[in-house]
Amino acid sequence: MPKRLYILNGSNLNLLGTREPHLYGSTTLPEVAAQCARRAAEHGLTAVFRQTNSEGKLVDWIQEASKRAAGIVINPAGWTTTSVAVLDALLAFGGPIVEIHVTNIHRRDAFRRHSLVSQAATAVLAGFGPQGYVLAVDAIARLIAARAPSA
Amino acid sequence: MPKRLYILNGSNLNLLGTREPHLYGSTTLPEVAAQCARRAAEHGLTAVFRQTNSEGKLVDWIQEASKRAAGIVINPAGWTTTSVAVLDALLAFGGPIVEIHVTNIHRRDAFRRHSLVSQAATAVLAGFGPQGYVLAVDAIARLIAARAPSA
Amino acid sequence: MPKRLYILNGSNLNLLGTREPHLYGSTTLPEVAAQCARRAAEHGLTAVFRQTNSEGKLVDWIQEASKRAAGIVINPAGWTTTSVAVLDALLAFGGPIVEIHVTNIHRRDAFRRHSLVSQAATAVLAGFGPQGYVLAVDAIARLIAARAPSA
Amino acid sequence: MPKRLYILNGSNLNLLGTREPHLYGSTTLPEVAAQCARRAAEHGLTAVFRQTNSEGKLVDWIQEASKRAAGIVINPAGWTTTSVAVLDALLAFGGPIVEIHVTNIHRRDAFRRHSLVSQAATAVLAGFGPQGYVLAVDAIARLIAARAPSA
Amino acid sequence: MPKRLYILNGSNLNLLGTREPHLYGSTTLPEVAAQCARRAAEHGLTAVFRQTNSEGKLVDWIQEASKRAAGIVINPAGWTTTSVAVLDALLAFGGPIVEIHVTNIHRRDAFRRHSLVSQAATAVLAGFGPQGYVLAVDAIARLIAARAPSA
Amino acid sequence: MPKRLYILNGSNLNLLGTREPHLYGSTTLPEVAAQCARRAAEHGLTAVFRQTNSEGKLVDWIQEASKRAAGIVINPAGWTTTSVAVLDALLAFGGPIVEIHVTNIHRRDAFRRHSLVSQAATAVLAGFGPQGYVLAVDAIARLIAARAPSA
Amino acid sequence: MPKRLYILNGSNLNLLGTREPHLYGSTTLPEVAAQCARRAAEHGLTAVFRQTNSEGKLVDWIQEASKRAAGIVINPAGWTTTSVAVLDALLAFGGPIVEIHVTNIHRRDAFRRHSLVSQAATAVLAGFGPQGYVLAVDAIARLIAARAPSA
Amino acid sequence: MPKRLYILNGSNLNLLGTREPHLYGSTTLPEVAAQCARRAAEHGLTAVFRQTNSEGKLVDWIQEASKRAAGIVINPAGWTTTSVAVLDALLAFGGPIVEIHVTNIHRRDAFRRHSLVSQAATAVLAGFGPQGYVLAVDAIARLIAARAPSA
Amino acid sequence: MPKRLYILNGSNLNLLGTREPHLYGSTTLPEVAAQCARRAAEHGLTAVFRQTNSEGKLVDWIQEASKRAAGIVINPAGWTTTSVAVLDALLAFGGPIVEIHVTNIHRRDAFRRHSLVSQAATAVLAGFGPQGYVLAVDAIARLIAARAPSA
Amino acid sequence: MPKRLYILNGSNLNLLGTREPHLYGSTTLPEVAAQCARRAAEHGLTAVFRQTNSEGKLVDWIQEASKRAAGIVINPAGWTTTSVAVLDALLAFGGPIVEIHVTNIHRRDAFRRHSLVSQAATAVLAGFGPQGYVLAVDAIARLIAARAPSA
Amino acid sequence: MPKRLYILNGSNLNLLGTREPHLYGSTTLPEVAAQCARRAAEHGLTAVFRQTNSEGKLVDWIQEASKRAAGIVINPAGWTTTSVAVLDALLAFGGPIVEIHVTNIHRRDAFRRHSLVSQAATAVLAGFGPQGYVLAVDAIARLIAARAPSA
Amino acid sequence: MPKRLYILNGSNLNLLGTREPHLYGSTTLPEVAAQCARRAAEHGLTAVFRQTNSEGKLVDWIQEASKRAAGIVINPAGWTTTSVAVLDALLAFGGPIVEIHVTNIHRRDAFRRHSLVSQAATAVLAGFGPQGYVLAVDAIARLIAARAPSA
Repeated sequence: MPKRLYILNGSNLNLLGTREPHLYGSTTLPEVAAQCARRAAEHGLTAVFRQTNSEGKLVDWIQEASKRAAGIVINPAGWTTTSVAVLDALLAFGGPIVEIHVTNIHRRDAFRRHSLVSQAATAVLAGFGPQGYVLAVDAIARLIAARAPSA
Repeated sequence: MPKRLYILNGSNLNLLGTREPHLYGSTTLPEVAAQCARRAAEHGLTAVFRQTNSEGKLVDWIQEASKRAAGIVINPAGWTTTSVAVLDALLAFGGPIVEIHVTNIHRRDAFRRHSLVSQAATAVLAGFGPQGYVLAVDAIARLIAARAPSA
Repeated sequence: MPKRLYILNGSNLNLLGTREPHLYGSTTLPEVAAQCARRAAEHGLTAVFRQTNSEGKLVDWIQEASKRAAGIVINPAGWTTTSVAVLDALLAFGGPIVEIHVTNIHRRDAFRRHSLVSQAATAVLAGFGPQGYVLAVDAIARLIAARAPSA
Repeated sequence: MPKRLYILNGSNLNLLGTREPHLYGSTTLPEVAAQCARRAAEHGLTAVFRQTNSEGKLVDWIQEASKRAAGIVINPAGWTTTSVAVLDALLAFGGPIVEIHVTNIHRRDAFRRHSLVSQAATAVLAGFGPQGYVLAVDAIARLIAARAPSA
Repeated sequence: MPKRLYILNGSNLNLLGTREPHLYGSTTLPEVAAQCARRAAEHGLTAVFRQTNSEGKLVDWIQEASKRAAGIVINPAGWTTTSVAVLDALLAFGGPIVEIHVTNIHRRDAFRRHSLVSQAATAVLAGFGPQGYVLAVDAIARLIAARAPSA
Repeated sequence: MPKRLYILNGSNLNLLGTREPHLYGSTTLPEVAAQCARRAAEHGLTAVFRQTNSEGKLVDWIQEASKRAAGIVINPAGWTTTSVAVLDALLAFGGPIVEIHVTNIHRRDAFRRHSLVSQAATAVLAGFGPQGYVLAVDAIARLIAARAPSA
Repeated sequence: MPKRLYILNGSNLNLLGTREPHLYGSTTLPEVAAQCARRAAEHGLTAVFRQTNSEGKLVDWIQEASKRAAGIVINPAGWTTTSVAVLDALLAFGGPIVEIHVTNIHRRDAFRRHSLVSQAATAVLAGFGPQGYVLAVDAIARLIAARAPSA
Repeated sequence: MPKRLYILNGSNLNLLGTREPHLYGSTTLPEVAAQCARRAAEHGLTAVFRQTNSEGKLVDWIQEASKRAAGIVINPAGWTTTSVAVLDALLAFGGPIVEIHVTNIHRRDAFRRHSLVSQAATAVLAGFGPQGYVLAVDAIARLIAARAPSA
Repeated sequence: MPKRLYILNGSNLNLLGTREPHLYGSTTLPEVAAQCARRAAEHGLTAVFRQTNSEGKLVDWIQEASKRAAGIVINPAGWTTTSVAVLDALLAFGGPIVEIHVTNIHRRDAFRRHSLVSQAATAVLAGFGPQGYVLAVDAIARLIAARAPSA
Repeated sequence: MPKRLYILNGSNLNLLGTREPHLYGSTTLPEVAAQCARRAAEHGLTAVFRQTNSEGKLVDWIQEASKRAAGIVINPAGWTTTSVAVLDALLAFGGPIVEIHVTNIHRRDAFRRHSLVSQAATAVLAGFGPQGYVLAVDAIARLIAARAPSA
Repeated sequence: MPKRLYILNGSNLNLLGTREPHLYGSTTLPEVAAQCARRAAEHGLTAVFRQTNSEGKLVDWIQEASKRAAGIVINPAGWTTTSVAVLDALLAFGGPIVEIHVTNIHRRDAFRRHSLVSQAATAVLAGFGPQGYVLAVDAIARLIAARAPSA
Repeated sequence: MPKRLYILNGSNLNLLGTREPHLYGSTTLPEVAAQCARRAAEHGLTAVFRQTNSEGKLVDWIQEASKRAAGIVINPAGWTTTSVAVLDALLAFGGPIVEIHVTNIHRRDAFRRHSLVSQAATAVLAGFGPQGYVLAVDAIARLIAARAPSA
């Protein structure tokens, strides 16, 4: 059975492609989901792709991933710099975690720059636009493979 | 058809009129809602008045307002100084936004003073007590009118 | 005899309507004064409207208001964040005080954001443009009325 | 009728006993709930024991406690240092509040050290492991009794 | 032979019950000592209870405890936030340490809030008033027992 | 001819005795002036006693004192913590300077605590109430005498 | 019987008159004690004049003063900016407290500038050299008299 | 008609040449004015040279310059680091502005180092002594010429 | 002719694979260079791969890239957080820039966390180990392609 | 023999006139060098004009200047705010030093604002564009002349 | 008669060799004293070696050294970063002072890093373990010799 | 074959003995090198003594030392507080490292006080003047010997 990959998206990412396209591009989140599904399949993975505006739901999903997924790709969006709850949920996850941001947050306002969530991430990707998700799938696939015992 | 005005209230404002009346006055939130409805009607607007203790629901409502409302009056309450999620949702809203606080937050504890949400607000009102909502309705009506093409 | 309302303006506000109109609008201060006078009259108040580039004169006027006015509307302009002298004069005033800023100072440079004067203000209005003065007159009228014993 | 005691737990505490046992011990939350129920009963109290990953739900429960409980024991977990919403809900509660942390947060990372919620707590317990809950029940029982008029 | 428990008190605690009773309650330190002795006895422990205004003496006593006591309860009082000497002495102690504060220091002035001593404490109790000492004896007894090999 | 002593008072001190008497006492500034005149005379000095709400005037007076006075007693009031102009004028003065504050500014709000002007003062007196002025006259008389060559 | 006045001196003040005379002058501490004794006598007070290099002893003396003295003059010297123990002892003292520093600490190194002890002082004197002690005796005498009921 | 150049000087600069000559040199302000007048004439400009200790007057003069001068040379002196009023007046001026300081403020006390006024200046000169004014006249002449259309 | 891609490496990266392998992995820099060359070729790009311990040489190479390369992948290593010279050179480069770090710098010491160089980077990759270089080549190839006009 | 003047330029200034011309103008560094040579000659000085991207070379040149030049004009560029090595080399130079910046660094990003090098500079010029170099040559010529004994 | 050298040790150093040997080594303080005595003798000096947990006693000894010793070696231990009393006593000492720390405090927790006492030390040694004392004796001997007039 | 000891010196140390002799003494670097060579020889070590103004060269030498030297003595001079490149090179070195500063940097300007390089140093020596190098050779010899297996 293929391994599952959770791709979790935080607040307002459902607006991707419609909000401030000069910053975020014009690809929509369902389009991103479709691209991720295809790419994950090429790596032999099943992508579970979700978005929520509720921090609590995001925490629930991360906990769920602990039982069901081999890796997490997460765009914490509005909770990037402030949510200890999201951080703690990720710290309890055993597998690799790739944190992704659509924009290069390091060039934006000070309150967007310093990710708290990064303290639980294996690796971080920022500034590649919506296409960054595909890179993240490639990257997490490699990290999952690196842990899997060859049979 | 009259334009819609969203009046959105954050955490614990359902306690208005019962909690710390020396700070917040004794008018209750339903009474405020009724006053706002009347005043909005005088301006030819329909007021949608809501309160929630869930940040995620507040974000959802702001996104909903993007499709259905001509303006937002928001009292972000507990999320005033910390919620990037609420800020981002407001930044994606196209119309005028009036931020309101029942007390003068600038005279209170340091952690209540510096609104993050203000970065998305057109204008800010603080310290007028529950009556400030009526002023906010007057103000947002004016800001909406200023944008509307006269026919 | 009608009660008096002092509307006091700090540094460079005599340039209103001519300086940076994209920020401050094109209404001039005399026009604002006229609007305030009319609106005050509707509330049964006499508006005393003044502007100065001298911090000392502003302090003198606030002290004068203590003897002669039922309320103060103040736009401290350049002294907003730094003047303890203006703050102390306001702290010695017994009636309601509405602080007003033409722009939303919370979205501007850091050194403009944190009002010291707000510690003496009953309430604060920011970002409504020159039209905010009329809102301020409405608001102070209500605050004055709330203190007046009904006869 | 016995008085009710609310014991409320924040984000990720449902993982207690399974996550980082070197830090948090191996007792699970249901086991803690059972111990608390027994101890509360010895003090003549009924324990209502809950956990949530949603800040909004935690706020709702605290408001509910205002109407139904004689005291609150709270482990705010991920919201300890950041949630003004939780703080405000607790500030509106009339009875005694004991804040509890499983680990000694004062020895951990800087961003975990300074509890905002403590500003509403009557007293604080940290570092006693899961067994701290029983101490907290003893303590809150004493604080409730101190307020109860002897008959 | 019963194990010894050191209960050490820092500066000005000899004034307990007489100084600022609205903050510290009206129980005196000798009364606290008596309660602790009884409670310790119930746990099969002998309590050594002392107070000093001299930081050096407190350090000496902690070093003495290293040779003679199974656990320490300490109220560092005036040295809580500043004494590296007390901290270092506690770090050299092998057994469990419970830090206690009569008031909830987290709600007091900034310079009282951040305990340096906590970095050596197993656990911390604050805000339970003089009665907190009894809770601390219960807690340290449990911590000592957890380390003792059952015979 | 007797030496002259300048006693200069900054913003809002003309309100002394009427504003916040619980903080500042009920003695008025003219009464203080009279007491100072008498005390100065006992020391063989002529007191020049002035108050202004204008920083510029205060600077002018300090410069004037450089030519005409043997010492300065100054209560910089609202300019204590912020005025480089007042500081520079005092730095250019050759004689002794006693800075006085009616209240103990070290116990007040943070923004009132750190006097910039103190960097030019020979000595500082704070918290003695209006009576502190008499102490200041005694003190400056002694400092002037210490510099005067005996004839 | 004359009232007693405690004049307490902290660390290294026994070196007064010999250490860095350009900063501290050449009067020795015994000379200061003698001057204080004479001046106190003129005010009908008995001066108890002491110095110690031990913080604990200083705390003991302040506690002793609570039982035996009508006022305290204190030069906290090395403990000015750091000792919560001295601060707490002074906060428990019921009478007036005058804090004195030989130099103007506000002009010295940053770590000497911000007195913690001032939060318990009625008034502060700094920069008058050893002669400041006599001014302090005058001042405390006045503060004691102001509290004494006239007979 | 020759263009006008305003050369404006802030607080205490009337003391130039007499105050701290090791820092500021011994040239007086009238001598500087004469040199500037000559140099301005060589560039075909009329120099208007003024000094004031009143921030309000400086603001008035800058506003006046907006109507009458082609460029401003300003030494804001005591208002360099603190005056938003002076900054705002300069921001409203349309022509080039050269900020000048007699000393190299970057080597002086921290509170003198960071010019707020520089945010409105085209260019800055510091540390050339009184002779820097002549350099400033050269520089502003060049900046004015660069804007003037050649005829 | 294939486009050139510059892959530039800062201080101590020549030690990759030998220094702290638990942090940086055991792949050496020449091996990374070979992998990058192959991957670049798959994208139709020629990789120029260099390392230096000299900040000046790195700046020279970036300037050289401005004339000869379509994109830059840079691991600024020791200059990440401090070098304005490297930042300025990158700001003058017209094409896309991908910044790469072998480790997740956001989880390391504070002085390693906040990249200054990121202000010039199009996108950032951190924490993927030496394999991250291949991802970076993929990413820059995509960014270059996105800019290239299709023929 | 004419005296030598060293004009030293730091990182990326070789790009002057080509990089961000809206900020830095379109004059190239060789053109600036030519202008400086001419102007220096008018003052009877020989200009040695150099640029480097290597901090070490810049330090070497400053040391060389100590033996061979009467004055230094330096644009430290990327090392302005961070290089203690450059600062120390300049501190060892005996003659006058003029620091120059093409743009007004005080209006730019925070990390560009506070020059460390200024602590060794006699005077500073910023914001005059490439033409500022000629002003700097005038200024240093005057400073050199002021030190030279007239024969 | 041989000169005396005071070697003074602060809080908890009596535990040397027994406490945290991985940090402090296993040599005990008496062993260190013996080594120092021998080494001092080789330099013709008599070593007075003491340890105390009382800050006051340490101050007393430093004052005593002022009268009796040619140099001081001091390990201020717990008072390193906080004791103004110890600093002041050392500032009053006329001879050379070598500050020593057994560990490299610059690599430890932030609150241990910045020595206040260093402001009075001639030189500092940190991180050489207990053997550092012998180096310190060598060093102080050299510093004493450098001051001694050769006969 | 004797073991090699690298003694590496950073920026401007070639000026030792000529620059600011009141701070650095009058011994030149070649003299220091000669003393070190002799002392190293007494310990059976060969000293390699170098200086550079180029950070890159210093990094290269440290890397070279990793292959060829048993220990490093380093005076990082201008790179002490800022160079991550030097720090990283030292972290990759396996043997003991002694950091040396000619002056007591802890008493100098704030920007010179906090060594970044110390995080890689075994031990630190500061303030012994040029003679400190000999102490450093003694110290490193001891540290090397402590690691060497006796044969």
